[in-house]
Amino acid sequence: MSNKIRWGVLGGGGDSLIGVLHRVAAGMFDAYQLTAAAFNPDKNISIAFAEEIGIPTDRIYTDLDEMISEEAKLPESERIQVVSIITPNFLHFPMAKQLMEAGYNVICEKPMTMTYDEALELEAIQEEKKCLFALTHTYTGYPMIRQMKKMIAEGVIGEVQKVDAQYYQGWINPIIHDKEKRSSTWRLDPEKSGKSCCMADIGVHAYQMIEYVTGIEVDSVLADLNHLYDDNQMDIDGTVLLRFEKPVKGVLCASQIATGEENNFTLAVYGKKAGLKWEQENPNYLYLLEEGQPLRVLKPGHSYNSDLSLDGTKLPPGHPEGIFDAMGNIYKGMAKAIRGQSFDPAEFPTIHDGVRGMHFIETALASHHDGNVWKSL
Amino acid sequence: MSNKIRWGVLGGGGDSLIGVLHRVAAGMFDAYQLTAAAFNPDKNISIAFAEEIGIPTDRIYTDLDEMISEEAKLPESERIQVVSIITPNFLHFPMAKQLMEAGYNVICEKPMTMTYDEALELEAIQEEKKCLFALTHTYTGYPMIRQMKKMIAEGVIGEVQKVDAQYYQGWINPIIHDKEKRSSTWRLDPEKSGKSCCMADIGVHAYQMIEYVTGIEVDSVLADLNHLYDDNQMDIDGTVLLRFEKPVKGVLCASQIATGEENNFTLAVYGKKAGLKWEQENPNYLYLLEEGQPLRVLKPGHSYNSDLSLDGTKLPPGHPEGIFDAMGNIYKGMAKAIRGQSFDPAEFPTIHDGVRGMHFIETALASHHDGNVWKSL
Amino acid sequence: MSNKIRWGVLGGGGDSLIGVLHRVAAGMFDAYQLTAAAFNPDKNISIAFAEEIGIPTDRIYTDLDEMISEEAKLPESERIQVVSIITPNFLHFPMAKQLMEAGYNVICEKPMTMTYDEALELEAIQEEKKCLFALTHTYTGYPMIRQMKKMIAEGVIGEVQKVDAQYYQGWINPIIHDKEKRSSTWRLDPEKSGKSCCMADIGVHAYQMIEYVTGIEVDSVLADLNHLYDDNQMDIDGTVLLRFEKPVKGVLCASQIATGEENNFTLAVYGKKAGLKWEQENPNYLYLLEEGQPLRVLKPGHSYNSDLSLDGTKLPPGHPEGIFDAMGNIYKGMAKAIRGQSFDPAEFPTIHDGVRGMHFIETALASHHDGNVWKSL
Amino acid sequence: MSNKIRWGVLGGGGDSLIGVLHRVAAGMFDAYQLTAAAFNPDKNISIAFAEEIGIPTDRIYTDLDEMISEEAKLPESERIQVVSIITPNFLHFPMAKQLMEAGYNVICEKPMTMTYDEALELEAIQEEKKCLFALTHTYTGYPMIRQMKKMIAEGVIGEVQKVDAQYYQGWINPIIHDKEKRSSTWRLDPEKSGKSCCMADIGVHAYQMIEYVTGIEVDSVLADLNHLYDDNQMDIDGTVLLRFEKPVKGVLCASQIATGEENNFTLAVYGKKAGLKWEQENPNYLYLLEEGQPLRVLKPGHSYNSDLSLDGTKLPPGHPEGIFDAMGNIYKGMAKAIRGQSFDPAEFPTIHDGVRGMHFIETALASHHDGNVWKSL
Repeated sequence: MSNKIRWGVLGGGGDSLIGVLHRVAAGMFDAYQLTAAAFNPDKNISIAFAEEIGIPTDRIYTDLDEMISEEAKLPESERIQVVSIITPNFLHFPMAKQLMEAGYNVICEKPMTMTYDEALELEAIQEEKKCLFALTHTYTGYPMIRQMKKMIAEGVIGEVQKVDAQYYQGWINPIIHDKEKRSSTWRLDPEKSGKSCCMADIGVHAYQMIEYVTGIEVDSVLADLNHLYDDNQMDIDGTVLLRFEKPVKGVLCASQIATGEENNFTLAVYGKKAGLKWEQENPNYLYLLEEGQPLRVLKPGHSYNSDLSLDGTKLPPGHPEGIFDAMGNIYKGMAKAIRGQSFDPAEFPTIHDGVRGMHFIETALASHHDGNVWKSL
Repeated sequence: MSNKIRWGVLGGGGDSLIGVLHRVAAGMFDAYQLTAAAFNPDKNISIAFAEEIGIPTDRIYTDLDEMISEEAKLPESERIQVVSIITPNFLHFPMAKQLMEAGYNVICEKPMTMTYDEALELEAIQEEKKCLFALTHTYTGYPMIRQMKKMIAEGVIGEVQKVDAQYYQGWINPIIHDKEKRSSTWRLDPEKSGKSCCMADIGVHAYQMIEYVTGIEVDSVLADLNHLYDDNQMDIDGTVLLRFEKPVKGVLCASQIATGEENNFTLAVYGKKAGLKWEQENPNYLYLLEEGQPLRVLKPGHSYNSDLSLDGTKLPPGHPEGIFDAMGNIYKGMAKAIRGQSFDPAEFPTIHDGVRGMHFIETALASHHDGNVWKSL
Repeated sequence: MSNKIRWGVLGGGGDSLIGVLHRVAAGMFDAYQLTAAAFNPDKNISIAFAEEIGIPTDRIYTDLDEMISEEAKLPESERIQVVSIITPNFLHFPMAKQLMEAGYNVICEKPMTMTYDEALELEAIQEEKKCLFALTHTYTGYPMIRQMKKMIAEGVIGEVQKVDAQYYQGWINPIIHDKEKRSSTWRLDPEKSGKSCCMADIGVHAYQMIEYVTGIEVDSVLADLNHLYDDNQMDIDGTVLLRFEKPVKGVLCASQIATGEENNFTLAVYGKKAGLKWEQENPNYLYLLEEGQPLRVLKPGHSYNSDLSLDGTKLPPGHPEGIFDAMGNIYKGMAKAIRGQSFDPAEFPTIHDGVRGMHFIETALASHHDGNVWKSL
Repeated sequence: MSNKIRWGVLGGGGDSLIGVLHRVAAGMFDAYQLTAAAFNPDKNISIAFAEEIGIPTDRIYTDLDEMISEEAKLPESERIQVVSIITPNFLHFPMAKQLMEAGYNVICEKPMTMTYDEALELEAIQEEKKCLFALTHTYTGYPMIRQMKKMIAEGVIGEVQKVDAQYYQGWINPIIHDKEKRSSTWRLDPEKSGKSCCMADIGVHAYQMIEYVTGIEVDSVLADLNHLYDDNQMDIDGTVLLRFEKPVKGVLCASQIATGEENNFTLAVYGKKAGLKWEQENPNYLYLLEEGQPLRVLKPGHSYNSDLSLDGTKLPPGHPEGIFDAMGNIYKGMAKAIRGQSFDPAEFPTIHDGVRGMHFIETALASHHDGNVWKSL
């Protein structure tokens, strides 16, 4: 009998990248077993997808209603323990509400809800039902962000006195400058996406991270947003002045018209004694700036990191976490070959590489041994 | 019925990091189903581990002999299709040999064998048995290495004229300078580790990558290795001069006494028209140096990359591949909470983060709407 | 008869770093001859300093009054043509005024004046007198800033739509948190330093650079400044929201309490087609971000740069401008030896280095020639 | 009477970049007075150049013979004290020899001589004549190289055990692949340039720096050089294995066919306790790698640096040394305006910048004071 957590999923089937992300993450520490799912409103599609990814199809459901009613018939020891919501944004709130009312733990993609009122309602339900609820602000999972949080908590930088967060992207640029596109994309339609584009999509990430790493809360904000065009109702850029408990101040800059930027999210926190900086695009480095001292660059996996940070690192220092993906690609290439789909030695090293490698090692040793002379391979 | 590849594993149980790496990689594209395994010589330990990671225990075997004989009794449609060898190095050769002789496809950790002769023997068996064989030179799976290979093949840098590879680590330093440790560690014992330490462990990675990205083969080598101490039999540092087809030359530097280096592997290939450079510790950047042009920095996921590169990227530009790990850590934190092991809001964002976030968004909009005035949170 | 410009200097004697900076800069293109000066209110000190730096002492003056009256007695062909003001800040305005009223061209350190009214007054005098006036906003002299300006002017990034400038320092930190120091330093005394500390000292640099590189003017600002302590009258940190001609917006962040930051001034301008970024601490790199293209990194001295940029580069690509300073240090070391002050082979390479070098070259050639064998040095 | 050192120069007139470099360097610490020169074999050209750069023409000489005979007629207190040789390479040796035989101190561009024998001859003369002799291996003047030297001397990294130097350029690429150009360029003509191209030009820099920073000498070398074409007599690429006192080894890689590289010179020294790394293209950073510690990045001007390093820094931390050049460019622009050659506000900030700046400061203060409201500029 497996010790794994019985896990349900709503949405995320087919080509969904976010679905892949959640499944890989769930598999990473051997802790979750995908047990029930409603990947798609069309149950046949859900079942086909379940087969494709190799999970049993007997607990594939049409929708959340069916999931809840059918799971309720199972003994508690078999029933799913937690459900991930990775459906379109407007479904996050009703699904989370229904799940918690039925007593389920929830893992929910962001944004959690469409409005603040809905968010408060969910919080009230959670307090009543005592469910667990995780919101996937993914960046809080980076080992060096966790280290940043711990170092601030431990007083390494002294009392916080200045916060600077910047989250710049440029992806909306080709849309916003095209009258046709900007009036038709769902991203800029308040009905479909809520009242805000830039602040809701990325500003809120920066905001959550500020509070996560500093452990202090923003008291008040003053915002200047930009819509660029009068016929565009949604903010696509903005700067928010932040005030914390007096006299701490900060600034949060977010933009989707920072042309050419990909996902340039940076966070800097300055205290009385030192500063700490981090960049999402190079997440393995944490910079400690101390007056009159050499800049120090901390990296994951070292014993100088906190337990919280080390708990999130799987490999020794010097191996960027992306090495999992590199290995994944090799397994992918081999899978194509096993299935007879394609055979491309560019996609995985073959036995010939092994032969060459052993020959290289022995030849290098011989060259050295014989007095640093040339040897053929 | 699952479409997944039926996958067997030898070794890699318990706390093995390499085991985690292979399982996560196998799960990354929903292509493999862990179906049979001999994690440990002690079958009870293997079974306990299977339960821990949540896989059926009926095909957990004592050893490779049992795996082969028992799997042979199953219909081909149920039998495992490929086996990963992640046991100690000296077992790679006999296991790979036995598996291929029994007709199995193999995924093998490096080093493939202990000697060149063994490598040739495996190659002969593979040719006879027509099995698939993947050697996990993991770095070939990085999207930007694949892009580098393709750009060289397409002539972007012109004919290759100079190759420079450097692989510097410092981990052996505390061992090598301690007479007791250097005489007792298995890494420096030729009986247990083969004839070479530095060249076999990392030099061969650099060598394989040189041939992988350039598509040309090294003809001859001249090596100068360093053992530092007379009582140490194994190379722990060395430089190898390389000659390719005339007049191409190159150099391969490898060291385990480059104190303070973690896994600093860099590769530069210069052609008649341009150069390409890559660093393992920041694997998402590929540098194109063209005479008289601005330096160009290529990143994964962009449409300017080759199909081979894009096939290995899962997320949009700007998201380092390590984001899978960040999400994995959030799932891990939630798993601890579900299992009642611990509850730490530093390990996953909670509903309170969702509430704060929605409040922030609405308050920022209100501040802007009311004429850029302060609003409390 | 020299073709050099006859140059006068006010202030900048003794150990003044800013004096060194102006003299080296004036000497850099062989264009200025230091001809007259009032380095110090004490004329004897001025004369001693003139001797120390090796210029004639006959035109060393007690003060600006004497400089103006004495120079007026000389024929125009001998009279100084331009005067640099590098005295304490409060003297900038009266000196610049007096000089221009007497018909002199002026090079003035920043801040130009203590108030906006004084600035307007200077501008009116200049218009009347038709003098030349240069304000040493030094950063505009960087080759890559000039390139940034030209590329924006030429439309490389399209119409500007977003501006982001950040100027973070941490130097005031040890002062501001010490009640004694913050009440006694002249930097925080409005009588001595004007009404503003952070905005006047560094914010204005960022502001000037924004208008310099974009060629567009800020229309209005909304500022939130920080004083940290109630007993401190001067801003030491602040964020300024910027509005240009509608709909262009921007943000200017400046701080002197960004603990551990040295002189971290960055500038980013995003247009409809691309973005451009620059960092003062690594001034030789200009980053061009274009949607869907590899990041391009431009460096000084390349023919792809504009004439304005190339005019400010003296050396070939790859030699950071700081190489002048490296050579200066070698001359300094040799000067100490010539003067018999000290002789330290760490301060300049000696003939022994030359001997070793020639031996190395010939030995390396011999090693190669004799078939890649070891040769002693 | 000036305290400056009376300085003579051979060569370096007209558009010579190396001439500018030496003059600026000599002026940088107010220590040298350019007093005598033979810029060009044609005395009229020399005199015109002296006028252009504004120095007296009475001690401009036709050649070194005349310089030596005429200077000898002057009293010692007026006679030049040191002569810089910045003529073509083949003249370095005879000029240095003649100067030292006449008792002069010498500053000599590299290469010091054409052969090792000549170098030994110069060394013997120097020992006899007790002159001072500086060879301008410029890179030894960088503050962080000096710091690297001192830290190694002080044992910060422990006993040196591994040295790695790489000096990669690509400039010869367009020449070497053109049969016509490679047979006609003086750089590849042994008659004009000596026996070596790559090793003599850049390899020797790397070699000198290795010995400079480590303080230990190379004992023997094994070289493999590359000429690429059979009709090319000169090395344009090569790798040199290095042996120091047993068991220290190292490698020196140099290339002029590393296509796209500008002046990529890096130096790494690893000791028993830590490693130190430096890059010429970003010379303000020195990296200290210590096992199990965060990477530390040292920068110039900080009090944690040695006196030797601080002696070569003129400005506070955060100002890259290139700021001298930026200021020089502003002086250059102003010089053009004073001379009526051109007036371009892109070349120096004008009074209008001062007015805008003061307005910005006052307006920002007012916006803050009035409660964070918008104010027009």
